[in-house]
Amino acid sequence: MKKEIIMGKRIVVALGGNAILSNDPTAKGQIKTLSNTSEKLVQLIEAGYELIITHGNGPQVGNLILQQEALNSKSNPAMPLDTAVAMTQGSIGYWLQNTLDEALRKCGIHKPVATLLTQVVVSNDDPAFQNPTKPIGPFLSKEEAEKRAAQSSDTYIEDAGRGYRRVVPSPKPIYIVEADIISNLADNGVIVISAGGGGIPVIEDNGCYRGIEAVIDKDFAAAKLAEIVRADYLVILTGVDNAYINFNKPSQQKLEQVDVRQMKRYIEENQFAAGSMLPKIEASISFVENTDNGKAYITSLDNVEAVINDESATIITK
Amino acid sequence: MKKEIIMGKRIVVALGGNAILSNDPTAKGQIKTLSNTSEKLVQLIEAGYELIITHGNGPQVGNLILQQEALNSKSNPAMPLDTAVAMTQGSIGYWLQNTLDEALRKCGIHKPVATLLTQVVVSNDDPAFQNPTKPIGPFLSKEEAEKRAAQSSDTYIEDAGRGYRRVVPSPKPIYIVEADIISNLADNGVIVISAGGGGIPVIEDNGCYRGIEAVIDKDFAAAKLAEIVRADYLVILTGVDNAYINFNKPSQQKLEQVDVRQMKRYIEENQFAAGSMLPKIEASISFVENTDNGKAYITSLDNVEAVINDESATIITK
Repeated sequence: MKKEIIMGKRIVVALGGNAILSNDPTAKGQIKTLSNTSEKLVQLIEAGYELIITHGNGPQVGNLILQQEALNSKSNPAMPLDTAVAMTQGSIGYWLQNTLDEALRKCGIHKPVATLLTQVVVSNDDPAFQNPTKPIGPFLSKEEAEKRAAQSSDTYIEDAGRGYRRVVPSPKPIYIVEADIISNLADNGVIVISAGGGGIPVIEDNGCYRGIEAVIDKDFAAAKLAEIVRADYLVILTGVDNAYINFNKPSQQKLEQVDVRQMKRYIEENQFAAGSMLPKIEASISFVENTDNGKAYITSLDNVEAVINDESATIITK
Repeated sequence: MKKEIIMGKRIVVALGGNAILSNDPTAKGQIKTLSNTSEKLVQLIEAGYELIITHGNGPQVGNLILQQEALNSKSNPAMPLDTAVAMTQGSIGYWLQNTLDEALRKCGIHKPVATLLTQVVVSNDDPAFQNPTKPIGPFLSKEEAEKRAAQSSDTYIEDAGRGYRRVVPSPKPIYIVEADIISNLADNGVIVISAGGGGIPVIEDNGCYRGIEAVIDKDFAAAKLAEIVRADYLVILTGVDNAYINFNKPSQQKLEQVDVRQMKRYIEENQFAAGSMLPKIEASISFVENTDNGKAYITSLDNVEAVINDESATIITK
C-alpha cells in the first residue's frame, strides 16, 4: 500500500559495485550500467526526496592501481592510495552525474547534479592500523611480496591461494571534511555525489589533513555522511532485496522492519557475513543510533521503490 | 604604490603547469610544489578577494594515459580522454585543496575549499574537430600509428622528430555545465577549485552531455568561467611576470596596461608565440570583451601580489 509522501526528506544512498560495473569495464560499459542505476534512482527524486549519493570504487581503484604499477618509474610514478581514490571519485562521479542528469531530463525534472571531491577523516589511533585487512593492488609472488615488504612499511598477505597481495587498513570514518558544503548544496536543491569509494582517507594533523594509505568502507562512510548532514534515511543498495537470518538454512527468514536492539542480537548470533552483509547492518545501526529519527534501508536497486512505499526492504529503526 | 583594496572582488585564477609540477612527479613532489603555490595564492585571499581556481593537467593526464595504455586489456581497458581529465581533476584538486587549506590555516583564515568536478561544453561544429592539433599519449612507431589509425577514427602525426603521436582537437569552450553551482559556492564564501585541465570536454546532444575526445585550453576555459561567474578579474599565472612585444629583440618591450584594441594589433603583428603566450592573450581579450568591467592579468605566481597592487603585470583592459 502506498504511503503518503512527505516532501523534502533527505536520503543518503550508498551504491554498491553492481550499480556501476556489471560485466563490461570500459567507460562505455560502466556508463551503460550507471544509466540503468540512474533511471531507478530518479524514482526517489520524482517522489520528492532530496538525494545525496555515495558509491563504491573497488574494481575501479583496483584497475587503476594495476595500471600505475605496470609503468611505475621515476618519470611516471604510481600514485598513493588516497590520490587513486580521488581519481576514481573523478571518473565515477563524472559518469554518474551525467547519467543522472539524462535520467532526470527524460522525466522532465530540472535539477542540478554536482560531484564534490570528498575527504573522510579517520583516526591515527584506529585499531585497523594495527591490523590491515583490505587487499589492494596486484597479486605477487612470495619473493616479490617479501622484497616489497622489506623496502617499505607495507603489509603483504597470502590471498585466497592466488598469490600475495598488499593489505591496507580499513579504519572507521570520524568526520567528512566537506560535510557543510554537501549540506549546503543539498539545501539549495542540488543532487550531490560525494564520498565516493568511502572518501579520500585523511588523518588530522595539527589542524591539517594528510592523506593516508587506507580504504574506508563505503557503507560506513555513507552512514557517517547521513548522520552529519542530518539525513532522514540511509539507503544501502546491494545485490539482494533484504537481509536474512539463518541464511541458506531451512529456517531462513527475511528481515523486514527490525529495531537496533534486535539487530544487535542477530549480530551476536553471527547471522551476517563479515565483509558482506555485516558492515551494511553495522553501518545502518550506527546511523540509526546517532540520529533522532533516522531510518536505514537495506535493499536492492531494483527494489528501491520500497523506500517510497516503506515496505519489502530490510528497515532498521530505533 | 598600494591601492585601496576593494573587498569581495571575485577573481578566477588559472594556474599553469609549473604551479603544480616542478621536477618531482610523485604525489609528494607535486604536493610540495602546490604548497608553495598555495602560500602565494593565499595573499589574494588575505587581501579580501573571492577566489575560484582553475589549473592545467598536461603532464598528469599524459602520465595517466601512458599508464592506461601500458595495461590496456579487456579486463582493464584504457579510459577515454574525457574520463582521464575527470580523474586528474580528482587528483590535482585533492592536492590543491589540502595545500590551500593548510596555507589558510597558517594565516589564521578559516575558509572552506571545495573541488567541484567540472564539465565544459564545446560545439560539435568547432573547426578544431576538422584539425586536431593537441598531441596526447605515447610516442609510437610509424607502423603502430598507421595500424591504430586504420582501426579507429583517431589522427596520428609525426611529433618533433620523436615518433608518431595521436593528436586530438582543442575546441573552444562555450559553456561551463556547473557554472551556477560554482557561483553559488563562491557567493557562500567557499574557495572553489574547478574546470581543472580545461574541464571535462562534453558536447550537448538532445539536452544531455556526452564526453568527447578533446582537450580544452585551460586559459580559454578559465576565461569562459570568469565570464559566466561574473568575475572582476581573470588572472592567468605563467612562468613570466609580463608579456612582451619584440620578444628577444633589442627593441623588446614589457607590456603593462594595454587595452584590447592595442592587444589585437599586437596579435596581427604576430607578437605572441602560438601555443604559449598567444592563447593567454586571446583568453584575456575574450574575458575583457565579454564583461562590463573585467580586467585580465597575465603574470607569474611569484608576482601575484601585482594583482593586489594593480601594477607590474600585463593588464588587459577594455
